[in-house]
Amino acid sequence: MSWIENAWYVAAWDKEVDRAPLARTICGRPVVLYRKLDGGVVAMRDACPHRLLPLSMGMREGDSLRCLYHGLKLGPDGVAEEMPLKSDPVNRSVCAETFTVVEKYRFVWIWIGDKAAADPALIPDLWPCAATGWAFEGDYYPVRCDYRLLIDNLMDLTHETHVHVGSIGQPELLETPIDTRVEGDKVFVTRWMTGVDAPPFWRGALKKDGPVDRWQICEFLLPSAVIIDVGVAPVGAGASIERHDQGVRGFVIDVMTPENEGSTHYFWGMARNFATEDAGFGARFKTQQGGVFMEDVAVLEAQQRSIAANPHLKLRAYSIDEGGVRARQIIERKRREQVHAA
Amino acid sequence: MSWIENAWYVAAWDKEVDRAPLARTICGRPVVLYRKLDGGVVAMRDACPHRLLPLSMGMREGDSLRCLYHGLKLGPDGVAEEMPLKSDPVNRSVCAETFTVVEKYRFVWIWIGDKAAADPALIPDLWPCAATGWAFEGDYYPVRCDYRLLIDNLMDLTHETHVHVGSIGQPELLETPIDTRVEGDKVFVTRWMTGVDAPPFWRGALKKDGPVDRWQICEFLLPSAVIIDVGVAPVGAGASIERHDQGVRGFVIDVMTPENEGSTHYFWGMARNFATEDAGFGARFKTQQGGVFMEDVAVLEAQQRSIAANPHLKLRAYSIDEGGVRARQIIERKRREQVHAA
Amino acid sequence: MSWIENAWYVAAWDKEVDRAPLARTICGRPVVLYRKLDGGVVAMRDACPHRLLPLSMGMREGDSLRCLYHGLKLGPDGVAEEMPLKSDPVNRSVCAETFTVVEKYRFVWIWIGDKAAADPALIPDLWPCAATGWAFEGDYYPVRCDYRLLIDNLMDLTHETHVHVGSIGQPELLETPIDTRVEGDKVFVTRWMTGVDAPPFWRGALKKDGPVDRWQICEFLLPSAVIIDVGVAPVGAGASIERHDQGVRGFVIDVMTPENEGSTHYFWGMARNFATEDAGFGARFKTQQGGVFMEDVAVLEAQQRSIAANPHLKLRAYSIDEGGVRARQIIERKRREQVHAA
Repeated sequence: MSWIENAWYVAAWDKEVDRAPLARTICGRPVVLYRKLDGGVVAMRDACPHRLLPLSMGMREGDSLRCLYHGLKLGPDGVAEEMPLKSDPVNRSVCAETFTVVEKYRFVWIWIGDKAAADPALIPDLWPCAATGWAFEGDYYPVRCDYRLLIDNLMDLTHETHVHVGSIGQPELLETPIDTRVEGDKVFVTRWMTGVDAPPFWRGALKKDGPVDRWQICEFLLPSAVIIDVGVAPVGAGASIERHDQGVRGFVIDVMTPENEGSTHYFWGMARNFATEDAGFGARFKTQQGGVFMEDVAVLEAQQRSIAANPHLKLRAYSIDEGGVRARQIIERKRREQVHAA
Repeated sequence: MSWIENAWYVAAWDKEVDRAPLARTICGRPVVLYRKLDGGVVAMRDACPHRLLPLSMGMREGDSLRCLYHGLKLGPDGVAEEMPLKSDPVNRSVCAETFTVVEKYRFVWIWIGDKAAADPALIPDLWPCAATGWAFEGDYYPVRCDYRLLIDNLMDLTHETHVHVGSIGQPELLETPIDTRVEGDKVFVTRWMTGVDAPPFWRGALKKDGPVDRWQICEFLLPSAVIIDVGVAPVGAGASIERHDQGVRGFVIDVMTPENEGSTHYFWGMARNFATEDAGFGARFKTQQGGVFMEDVAVLEAQQRSIAANPHLKLRAYSIDEGGVRARQIIERKRREQVHAA
Repeated sequence: MSWIENAWYVAAWDKEVDRAPLARTICGRPVVLYRKLDGGVVAMRDACPHRLLPLSMGMREGDSLRCLYHGLKLGPDGVAEEMPLKSDPVNRSVCAETFTVVEKYRFVWIWIGDKAAADPALIPDLWPCAATGWAFEGDYYPVRCDYRLLIDNLMDLTHETHVHVGSIGQPELLETPIDTRVEGDKVFVTRWMTGVDAPPFWRGALKKDGPVDRWQICEFLLPSAVIIDVGVAPVGAGASIERHDQGVRGFVIDVMTPENEGSTHYFWGMARNFATEDAGFGARFKTQQGGVFMEDVAVLEAQQRSIAANPHLKLRAYSIDEGGVRARQIIERKRREQVHAA
């Protein structure tokens, strides 16, 4: 497989998981998710150990899940609590595989690999999702492409100029040199534009005329997330790479979870320090961002099909691609380490 | 393949086959069926021996079939009677494969294996389809699952409690012990419930209040049929496993013909000894049963997909599954005998 | 592959290719086509050399093409003219594969094989497409079948009797002997019907009652075209196989370009020497011919599926198929010569 097995992946937004079972395939594994009465999240292989019917077609009863087909009842630990025929003694060796889950940063994280290695400290640090004083919007999209094409896309924002010409693109993105650096398992791509016109989105957020400094700082985190620190500040307000809270600022959160080879669950969100009390802004932003992201989906899915249709061609990397290249190298190194260790 | 080759399979309800050619793939073989002027049924490989166009796109002429593409005309024995160019001499070595067919029990049966072994005495005994004094309704559904999943489903009716909770399910199905026994190539699963409430369907049939005895006796027959003797009788009317005509009774007939690996033609019918003159009952029953069966189709097709998505998991069998397990063992034993004999 | 690589194939009608990029897969190669400012046609691998996004999603700028994803700009020679980041020096080793194209006979021809062998003299001689004094109509259809099934279809017009019974079929097609002969890499099938009733289409064209002589002369040309000389003349007007301009005459042009194995771009046209000034006739003819061709598509796609569903059966050839058989032999001989030479 193309992904790291021993890692935390986002299975769902926390708000997506409720009492009713939710089916989602994570890294090739069909999974069913639901909440217990105490709110805790259960994640199980979405196949009844009896006849493999997806458990997500069944019904939650208390903290347990009852299969729709013959009524086998499994506890939140995946172990049988009631056999189909009530007179049959419960066989506790009957069980569904369960997965370790943690709720953090508005997400439900799932560990699909070796359970003993499931250390919550390894959850990628998506702190802006939970920062106080910041408003947050987010959404979910399935995309029929390799998850790494999304990483490439997000670690190189020059594409905004062409793909998102009507919203967040601007020519200066192509004129400003970028700085790419690796720090441990992280990759940073920094673009600092001074004295530019703010594009429509940021002009509206800043509510002030005149030239601005604009920044985009992309940060890749294992196994497959990107945080982008974005914003604008009026020229002369003193914004610097080190400190840039003088204008309006956001953190775009992007998490890519492989569904199968060639398909991805994409979770995006944005934390912002402006219009924080404006629910209307949030709703409009979510809709607008949906439109922007549909432009990306069209590109990414066409790219995936084209890769398949041109098997002798390889992806090439130029200077703008260094962030994506470094991120893929880190994924690949980690993936191989784990395969060899196993 | 997963099926027995030397066996009779239902190709169609007799009423489905008429003068116009009918295309249906049976055990991986594309077949065209039509009736001759004397009403006899012809079954041929559905591919013109000339350029392989499906013969079912062609036209019946008398007892023969003319290919739509170039007009090659084949007799009911599959042998060429007229070449595309009228001046060409008829080449009688040009022929389509034909299949032996027999009409019995309201069905057209086809023998797909070694012709010499096609003994009509081997047709499974579906006598209730043709019993005098019994009314009959039946229908056809294509299902995208392995035919053996349907056998499992029918040999274990505990699933009615959960899957058909609104119609024929009732909790007593889970509380009553079942008896499973093998007699030669047949498997019987017997469930006898005494002093229970009749579920809605049977209450309506009996037209009488008060507790009933209810029975379900499933009988598996090679290569792939299940007859279910079902009904209710008032408590105290004297119904016993040996003799139970004291109330209302039906025979559910289920025939599963493999189309290809992973897809099945499902023919179901019901013979009943009540409301026999009530055409309205028959029509309502057919509609209602269609709804019940759609619940099964949703389950069976999801199960088939789940088996594919969880390749390392195996179907497991509990006490309720013994009927299906035994039926599969008989199929598998017969299949291997034939493969080794061939 | 099933086709000849070193050959000219029709990529598109000339009128189909304009300033906006057109995507079309030719012999397994995704290709983008567009016109330069001087009207010349450019054909390139439809995958950006950078990240493989289809170039056809991009934008033409002057004579160049700019990729939608990151703005890499390629000249009409496929070579990079501008990198995504403007400050990056242009790397002229970055390039998309280009294909040699020639416009001739109303078509854009593409050479997909060894460029050094791309001799325009090898373009099949479809002179009727460009003959003065003849009116012309044509259209394009994608068909999900092997391109050779279309050649078979066109080299044996007996199928018109059955498949096109309502328009151009007539029983005499089956009664008249045909003459098949090979001349070098060409195959001719000639059918000359004397003193027959004209079918509806030709009766309308001739505008004259009484028996006619009708002819169909099919000519196969490498790599995959068929010209059919068709028409009728009043009996006694002196029409002969050698000279038959005494009545109404047309040349049906059929060009089959493999898209992939099992799918074909079909270009058909007709040059006619009657109703040449009647635009209404042309429009009606195109519509009617579309209907006739849909009858062929239904047959050809069913044939393709049937070939797949009956893997142990082979296409067989009778006298009427000699034209198609010879054409396939010539294709296969040429194909092998090229494979061995390579």
